[in-house]
Amino acid sequence: MDHARRIFSEYNAWLQSKSSLEPKALRIKAGFDLDFIHQECRLGLIRLWGEIQESDEYTLHLKMNDLEHEEFSLTPLENGFEIAGGSKNALLYGVYRFLNRLATGESMEKIHEHSAPKVDYRIINHWDNMDGHIERGYAGNSFFFLNNKFDYDQERIKNYARLMASIGINGICINNVNVNKVSAGLIAEPLLTDMAELAALFRPFGIRLLVSVHFDAPMIVGGLTTSDPLDAGVKEFWKAQSAIVYDKIPDFLGYLVKADSEFRGGPEAFGRTQADGANTIAAAVAPFGGLVFWRCFVYNCQQDWRDAQTDRPMAAYKHFQPLDGTFDQNVILQIKNGPVDFQTREPVSPLFSNLKNTREAIEFQIAQEYTGQQIDLYSLAVQWEEILAAEVDKGKQLKSLFGQEIVAVTAVTNTGNNMNWTGNILAQCNLYAFGRMAWNPELTAKELIREWIQITFETDAHGRQTIEEMLLTSRGIYESYTAPLGIGFMVNPSNHYGPNVDGYEFSHWGTYHRASSDAIGVDRTSKGTGFTLQYPESLQRMYDHIESCPEELLLFFHRVRYDYKMKDGRTLLQYIYDSHFEGAQQAEALLQSWETLENRVPQEVFNSVKARLQLQLLNAREWRDQVNTYFYRKTGIDDEKGRKIYM
Amino acid sequence: MDHARRIFSEYNAWLQSKSSLEPKALRIKAGFDLDFIHQECRLGLIRLWGEIQESDEYTLHLKMNDLEHEEFSLTPLENGFEIAGGSKNALLYGVYRFLNRLATGESMEKIHEHSAPKVDYRIINHWDNMDGHIERGYAGNSFFFLNNKFDYDQERIKNYARLMASIGINGICINNVNVNKVSAGLIAEPLLTDMAELAALFRPFGIRLLVSVHFDAPMIVGGLTTSDPLDAGVKEFWKAQSAIVYDKIPDFLGYLVKADSEFRGGPEAFGRTQADGANTIAAAVAPFGGLVFWRCFVYNCQQDWRDAQTDRPMAAYKHFQPLDGTFDQNVILQIKNGPVDFQTREPVSPLFSNLKNTREAIEFQIAQEYTGQQIDLYSLAVQWEEILAAEVDKGKQLKSLFGQEIVAVTAVTNTGNNMNWTGNILAQCNLYAFGRMAWNPELTAKELIREWIQITFETDAHGRQTIEEMLLTSRGIYESYTAPLGIGFMVNPSNHYGPNVDGYEFSHWGTYHRASSDAIGVDRTSKGTGFTLQYPESLQRMYDHIESCPEELLLFFHRVRYDYKMKDGRTLLQYIYDSHFEGAQQAEALLQSWETLENRVPQEVFNSVKARLQLQLLNAREWRDQVNTYFYRKTGIDDEKGRKIYM
Repeated sequence: MDHARRIFSEYNAWLQSKSSLEPKALRIKAGFDLDFIHQECRLGLIRLWGEIQESDEYTLHLKMNDLEHEEFSLTPLENGFEIAGGSKNALLYGVYRFLNRLATGESMEKIHEHSAPKVDYRIINHWDNMDGHIERGYAGNSFFFLNNKFDYDQERIKNYARLMASIGINGICINNVNVNKVSAGLIAEPLLTDMAELAALFRPFGIRLLVSVHFDAPMIVGGLTTSDPLDAGVKEFWKAQSAIVYDKIPDFLGYLVKADSEFRGGPEAFGRTQADGANTIAAAVAPFGGLVFWRCFVYNCQQDWRDAQTDRPMAAYKHFQPLDGTFDQNVILQIKNGPVDFQTREPVSPLFSNLKNTREAIEFQIAQEYTGQQIDLYSLAVQWEEILAAEVDKGKQLKSLFGQEIVAVTAVTNTGNNMNWTGNILAQCNLYAFGRMAWNPELTAKELIREWIQITFETDAHGRQTIEEMLLTSRGIYESYTAPLGIGFMVNPSNHYGPNVDGYEFSHWGTYHRASSDAIGVDRTSKGTGFTLQYPESLQRMYDHIESCPEELLLFFHRVRYDYKMKDGRTLLQYIYDSHFEGAQQAEALLQSWETLENRVPQEVFNSVKARLQLQLLNAREWRDQVNTYFYRKTGIDDEKGRKIYM
Repeated sequence: MDHARRIFSEYNAWLQSKSSLEPKALRIKAGFDLDFIHQECRLGLIRLWGEIQESDEYTLHLKMNDLEHEEFSLTPLENGFEIAGGSKNALLYGVYRFLNRLATGESMEKIHEHSAPKVDYRIINHWDNMDGHIERGYAGNSFFFLNNKFDYDQERIKNYARLMASIGINGICINNVNVNKVSAGLIAEPLLTDMAELAALFRPFGIRLLVSVHFDAPMIVGGLTTSDPLDAGVKEFWKAQSAIVYDKIPDFLGYLVKADSEFRGGPEAFGRTQADGANTIAAAVAPFGGLVFWRCFVYNCQQDWRDAQTDRPMAAYKHFQPLDGTFDQNVILQIKNGPVDFQTREPVSPLFSNLKNTREAIEFQIAQEYTGQQIDLYSLAVQWEEILAAEVDKGKQLKSLFGQEIVAVTAVTNTGNNMNWTGNILAQCNLYAFGRMAWNPELTAKELIREWIQITFETDAHGRQTIEEMLLTSRGIYESYTAPLGIGFMVNPSNHYGPNVDGYEFSHWGTYHRASSDAIGVDRTSKGTGFTLQYPESLQRMYDHIESCPEELLLFFHRVRYDYKMKDGRTLLQYIYDSHFEGAQQAEALLQSWETLENRVPQEVFNSVKARLQLQLLNAREWRDQVNTYFYRKTGIDDEKGRKIYM
């Protein structure tokens, strides 16, 4: 243990040095022009074994062959092993995967794998502002920017690139989708040259950069008087400026655009459609093979709470579904997994069921904005597994669209300049799982969590089992003490942490639960706001009827009386009380489980996770008490089990 | 009208140039060393008349005599008029009062007045931060500070000093009671020399400066390792530093201290009493005739909402009443008018009934933090008149303490660097009324409002009457659409504007209404938290019994069922509905009244007030709907009159 503790570093994340693995004497043989990959393989083996004993008896072959573009194979040979790939990137992925499997303790002879990603683009979105602050960042500040300039440590960027490549990421958008006047200038000098230097650091790892661009860049950057996408001058601006960008960074992946959303400019301000906006910009990058990721997070964020007709989850569909088929080939509509905003529990966005002739990206959020902010433990892999398996049409799971309509998987990252990247080291698991699931959506949360634990921590069976159990249950625990049954929000406005049941109730953000003395929720069925009509008929029917609606989404779709009988016979109100009392208890149990790991995980890991679990417990109790008191005050009905509800 | 419109300036406030007054030829005769006062008198007459026609037929005598220190007399003579005062300051007050009465249109022959202030200290508190921002400022930024330096326009300061002296103000504390590390340095060089220069501008107007000091100045300014008030080094610091201050500003009035309050340091951090803290600092300024204003706004601002025992309004009494008689003579305890925090409706602080051997200042807030923020119309004079007439003991009104226990009247000002000083010009009336009431607490709101209108606006009878009516009713209107019957808060946290019924309900600030499905309020009677026991017996009995408790304070003192019958037979719930519907209607009527004044008041006044009244109407409707919906959702009971309550 002492030795392991000495070499463990949170900074190395899942690429830990390992002291426990049996080295194998071998010689690496790589083909022409594969020096970088050769070197990555060598460095990886040194991480695992401490050193490489050269031997002619056993050869590790790194080679390119005629596999698909990103496909690799891992094959044991007689007196050797072959890592092959259809491209340099593919080979690199093969090397990382090979190292990864060695790190889990497998012996080389047993490592057989043949793998290709389901989607072409696996992309990380940074919400980094150029002043260094990260929007919804819970792990420090940006490691790209400071004081409105590029300001980074080259070694750290290379380490970051390696971490990302090792889980299959091939695109990184470096700046916040909420572009300001400074970051709007990333597509022009002097910032462009700096961005090109950064791109060069990522390039060997097969990672291409993107930037978030400002829809009003024609005015802000170009000095024009309009950003109307059908204006000839505007079109010319985008073409000319993009040519400059591609001249500096020929393999630039493209632009990410948040338009007509939360006070951002967009085509609708000029009476144009989302397609008009996206296609104008897409036409400018098309000659260079560039892409435009166009976000669908468009809704009225100035709703009057008194307006019960407007229903926020319906907005994206209304804006984009009628435009299906009108987007250029290099436009990818970037759609959040759910129709609201990265809540603990939402149905899948109905756009995924209904865009048949449009290329799509699904956007997840690794940053735990609404899911505990890297204080409370929350394994997103568990939630993503459910989402990927959710139906988008009769008998058709969301993940079946991967490689079909869905050509890209993106996520808002949870990283920052904290030395362990993610603030809470256990949140590294979410980052790891994202990359792996984006590559292969069939992977289960359990597999990924287990894999991550194995390659990250040197601990004993109890340690591995405890961490696995904590992570696997964490999402359910968090959900049980926060907003119930898909109702969403109930968080403190603006910071989005901690309870505030009515916090968004009278605001302009369109997120209302409308709890009265006898019922709660918004009727989103075909008899209510009609949201369910945005789904294919089989799903619509399922959601429409309270009996067939998945119970965990009950309050997303229905307005329900507190005396409604749940499937197990409890009333809704009693269910709310129970889940909050139990959730807080389980949060306490998480802390107790962790406390059994002292001396089983490195001390700094033990301490920092423990401190967060203690904060989580306070948070869980606060949620329990505020939610229970809220409903007790509304109803006057006691908890059946007589537990303490404060007045 | 054209002429009046040309010379009117919001900047001149109640010292307007007047074109309508009949000038009188006269000669001013002033005694030895009264040049400044002579000049102020001359300037004042020129403001009123345009010019002074010199004449030997009529003499205006300015003289000192044996009146009390701040006493003046105004006396018509045969062929002349005498303004006399017991001191230069008194004479100056006499001159301003004389000019003020001329400005109302009175003829000189009828002006008889003999007046002395009830209290020695009439003080304005600025909550100006040295970065230029004003805490709770609604009229722009500081006119003293910018970028952590003194930065002011000398002419503006002189005009401000004249405005303040003209209403009897004789002390001004220039910086925020929340002292930071920069403003802590005001008592040391290099800032001290700058402050001395500012003091010199105020000196001719009889205004002495104070500063808010940081309780931890011994550490921050003195570099000591403690601020323990009983530490010899700490005592020495305060002595030595105060000697430096008084060397630069010999007539410096003293220090204002917010200690042990809202995250400020204080004696309790060192296990010392409030008296220990105050007396140590007071001893340091005593040799120079200096004062220490020690705020009593001490309470637990980290309360757990689940704790129903702790009752915030009880805190000041608990901290200070047991120390009665232990404060040095030059300590003045500065007590907010109510026990909570400048709400629309509170009882008088019980400290005023129970500090018999301690010198007190009553603190008001002219800045409309909780009372409409100089957007919504709110005449504080109306509220102050009620407060001053409130009982502090059987048959004894608060104002009877003026000149007894209460030796000072202070207020947080509503001024800033907006050209009209107060943002909303109608808020100038609050500033004016404060000075006049501090001088003479017997003045009524109606008198003061009328006086202020007369000397500020040149309008017709309809104009004067309309503005008077609007101001007189404004407080009741605001109260009717905001938090009902003394319950307080229900505002948006942090900015304190607009409704948020549960905004403070689960916070740590100690302000809870605890509304359930059948009742609302905190029982503060002797059977509840015991707050009423802090009052003398007659008041305690009155507040204890729901029948004798003033109805407007019903929800301050009692927890009341929604079906409780009010004096007029309505239920409490129906009262809440009614007052909110009516309040919003009255806000609309205010706007309509104002609209009749177009072309009757200067156009810029008309426009800027109208714009605010339009915002007020939106605010009133938002309050109406949020409050009504909140209680409708809690109770499920409809409005009897069938008006629209949103779900």
